[in-house]
Parts: sequence; C-alpha cells; structure tokens
Amino acid sequence: MEFDLIRLAKEILDVKREDVLVGIDDDCALVDVGVKLALTTDCLHEKTDFPKGIKSEEVGHLSLAVNLSDLASCGAKPMFFLYTITLSEKWIKDFEGILRGMKNLADRYGVAIVGGDTDFGEELHISGFAIGKAERFVSRANAEVGDRVCLTGLLGKAQLSLEQLMSGMSRDEIAYPNSLFKPEPRVKEGLEIAKFANSMTDVSDSLAISLHQIAKKSGVGIVIYESKIPLNHLTPYVKYEKALELFLYSGGDYELVFTSKNPKYIEIGEVIEGDGVYLVRKDGSIEDVEFRGWGVS
Amino acid sequence: MEFDLIRLAKEILDVKREDVLVGIDDDCALVDVGVKLALTTDCLHEKTDFPKGIKSEEVGHLSLAVNLSDLASCGAKPMFFLYTITLSEKWIKDFEGILRGMKNLADRYGVAIVGGDTDFGEELHISGFAIGKAERFVSRANAEVGDRVCLTGLLGKAQLSLEQLMSGMSRDEIAYPNSLFKPEPRVKEGLEIAKFANSMTDVSDSLAISLHQIAKKSGVGIVIYESKIPLNHLTPYVKYEKALELFLYSGGDYELVFTSKNPKYIEIGEVIEGDGVYLVRKDGSIEDVEFRGWGVS
Repeated sequence: MEFDLIRLAKEILDVKREDVLVGIDDDCALVDVGVKLALTTDCLHEKTDFPKGIKSEEVGHLSLAVNLSDLASCGAKPMFFLYTITLSEKWIKDFEGILRGMKNLADRYGVAIVGGDTDFGEELHISGFAIGKAERFVSRANAEVGDRVCLTGLLGKAQLSLEQLMSGMSRDEIAYPNSLFKPEPRVKEGLEIAKFANSMTDVSDSLAISLHQIAKKSGVGIVIYESKIPLNHLTPYVKYEKALELFLYSGGDYELVFTSKNPKYIEIGEVIEGDGVYLVRKDGSIEDVEFRGWGVS
Repeated sequence: MEFDLIRLAKEILDVKREDVLVGIDDDCALVDVGVKLALTTDCLHEKTDFPKGIKSEEVGHLSLAVNLSDLASCGAKPMFFLYTITLSEKWIKDFEGILRGMKNLADRYGVAIVGGDTDFGEELHISGFAIGKAERFVSRANAEVGDRVCLTGLLGKAQLSLEQLMSGMSRDEIAYPNSLFKPEPRVKEGLEIAKFANSMTDVSDSLAISLHQIAKKSGVGIVIYESKIPLNHLTPYVKYEKALELFLYSGGDYELVFTSKNPKYIEIGEVIEGDGVYLVRKDGSIEDVEFRGWGVS
C-alpha cells in the first residue's frame, strides 16, 4: 500500500520548474539554488523501525543514518540536518541520549544539526530531513545496458539479526548487532561511487526492490547471478535458501547498489536490454526476482 | 517541559561553523551554501494540533502553513517543502485530500513539494520541512531600544474558535472557522516587513511567549499598552478580561510580531532598556506579561 500512496503523491505533487531537477520520485530530490542541493526526508517509528532493546543513542544514530544513506545513494555530501521528535512518556528520559547519538554521527560526517521540533504523543516517532551538496547527482535512472551491478557490502545481516532477536536471543548473542542497531551509512562510498556510476540507490527495503526501481526508472532489465552472491556471512546461521532469501528480499542494511562500466566492491550482475529483474541460478535456470521486501510483501 | 527540552537540545547540538549563521535557536536556521537559505521544521499531530471536524484538505493546508509561517517570520521567501506523513487507519482514505490541501497552498506561494515519506501508525502525524531564500534574514534578536512593537493581525481568534467548538458549537457556528481550520501564513507580509524590521517572530504559541523570546534574545525589555490592543473582534463573544487573556496568551493565529523604527499594521507597544515584558493597563498600572501560552502553562 505504501507504494500505491507514493504513486498517488507523485501524481498530485507533480511540479515542473527549472529549479527542480529531480522531484519526488527518487532517494533525494535535486534542486538548483545556484548550487545543486540534494534534499531528503525519512521517518522512523518505535513499533516498525526500532528493534527491541535499542539504546537511546542508537535511536538517534539510526534516525540520522537513514537520511545520510539517502544522500549517499545520490552521491551527495551531507551538510545539514533537521529533525522532529515525538516522545512517548517512556522515552522522555532518553531524549538526551537520542540527541547525543544523532550528534555523534553528525560530527563524524561533518553534518550540522540546525533545527528541531519536539513534542509528545503515544509512540516514539522521529522524522529527519537532510540537505547535501551534489556535484554529480546519481539517480535511479540512467543505468546503461552493459553496466555491471555492484553492492558496497553484504546484505541480509540486519534481518537475520532481527529474526534472531525475535526468536529470544539477546543482543549480545545475535550475529550482527551493529547491522541492526547501528548501521553505518555509506557516505564516503557514495561520494566516491558517484564519480563513475550511472545509477545508484540504497538498499533500504530490499535488494529486489532497489533493483526493480533502477530497472524501471532506467528502462532496462537487470540480471544477477546466484554464483556471484556472497552468502557465507549468513549460512553459518540459516540454511542456504533462507540465506539467499535474506540477501534478496530483506531490508535494513543500508548498503548502496549501483551500476557502472567500472565494477567495484561486490559485483553481482549486469544491466541488459528489456525490462524486469532476473536471477540466474547456478544450474542456469532463470527466475524472476519479485518486487517485495520490507513493507512490501 | 517542551522548553526545557529545547534548552537541552541547544546545548547538545551546539555547532560553530562558518556556514551556519543562525543555529537551532530561532524560528528558522540560516545557512550559507553560496546563497543564504532559511531552514525550518514543524510537526503536527491529530490529538494536539488538528481540531475536531477538520477536513483532509485543511490538514494538508495547516501542515504546510505552520512551516511557511516560520519562514515568513524570518523574512524568507519559501521555495521547497518536504513532508513525512504517518497515517492511522481512519486517515488512509484522506491521504489524497491532505496532499491536495498541501499542494493548493504550495502553488499559491510558489513552493515546490519535492519529497515525502509515508507510513502507518496509531495517530495521524505530519512533519514538514521547508526551505526558503533569505535576502535579509530577521531573527528574534536585534530588537533595538525605541523600536515600536507591531502585529500583522488580530490575535485570539483561533483559540476563541477552538473553545467554541469544544463547547459544542458546530464549525459553521464558531466565530472564526478559518483562523482555526485554515490559517493563512503571512508570507507576503513577512517578506515586506523583513526590509525594515529589526526583529520578528510568528505568534504560534502566544503573543506573550513571542515577546519574551524577542526580549530575551535581544537583551531588551518590551512594554505593550492595553489601550492599543484591539479586542473588538473578541468582545462580542467573551468578556473583556477573557478577550485580553486570549489576545496575550493563546496560540494558533500565525500572525507575525516584529519590532521596527517604522511602525506598520497594528502597533501595540515599544522596546525599552532592561529586560522582561510588561503590560501597561489603562489605569496606568503595570503588570508582568507571563511566559505562558500554547503548551506552556
């Protein structure tokens, strides 16, 4: 349903203006105010986005990290951040920790937090708004036939860890606590990749959704190869097919996926003529990669 | 408590950077990216901010209006807007109306809505982020002794209407339905006033709070005169002292209050040496104006 609402929003809010270079339909908008600025916003809620046992500093970290990931995925250098926080009663004592977590991450990437609005409600809710400078803005469009498809890091770690946590393991026992509680946005990688990539997005909902978005926006097809997908970080914990499922269809890892003639990091496939997203299995058979992931099933 | 949290946020998030001209401590931040941009954020919730009976278009209007009011209060010309919306189940059908209300207001003031994030939760929640261009940024500081204190319009109408609504009147019966459901941000007035005002803010929480903020940030005192306060718009509905109370201590009207050597609109007082905010009654007695209003009692 979220994607239906996004389509509706695009229709209603459509705007044709010279200073709006990329509108509501990508990780970030791109506007021209003399310099080119990337703008993005993301909101997180207690029930859907903050795993049980998360510390207040990690809540603040995560709230900024998801927005920095959006900027990174367009190759924009983060500059400014604003937030709104709705505190439920039990979170009021954590306000300071939330801000300190936000501030620590902000300082590491040279982000100034310049505005905020705080109020009270029934559920912890944080909306973030980030502004970056984009020398070469890389969108989901413009993938070219012949591009290699690459990833900045391993996927499935956040969801694996979440499932372990929900099965009763403690945060000290789960496989990748940092992937779940304190993911690192790929800010430096995004800036570097932007110099040579044709398309890029972050893998927030799932690799499958990100690849479909690139394919659709670019008017191309994408194939990825099972033989190239690294699963050794998952197979100690789950069976092979489950590991593949986690890699393709789970979210929360905030890695970047990009297409370029110059492969780098983890190369998993290529851009082809046509449309759709396909997985070539090790036996040579071809499967559709479905459009599903976090929030879309 | 909100103001205690704001103080804490200011301490933690303090940043000294050449490109941050005004930080987290005003209606808007002011940053320099080659051009000077005003940045602001505001969030609204169903229970605290949307009066009963509000239409979906008005929800969208209000969500943008409060942010445009912040830009106006710094004399910034609005350019771009992004939102996050959390829909509770009963509001999902209103999503289109909310966006249309937002878009209508945006179009009237040349604002491009360039980003949004939509998800689902227990309470309708809308956060807005607005960016404006500031040729002459007017903050709460810099009020000068001898400045006249002026208002762009009448106050107390929103709260009067809210109290009428809560007492059982319908929205057709209350005195000022537009003040409550569809306040007009003073965008044009703010741009004009910015040319000659020394300090300015919008009256969102109450006139009393706004005057205290100007006095404190500017290191001055403020006196206002009962004899200059227009109450004829309220006295047909409530007794005189209640009308005065509404004018001084209620919020939601989104008028601008400013100080300048060139009085304009409604002049109600002046800036003096010292500190504090005072009301000179018609009999010549002087009362403290308290620091209270919406959210602060």
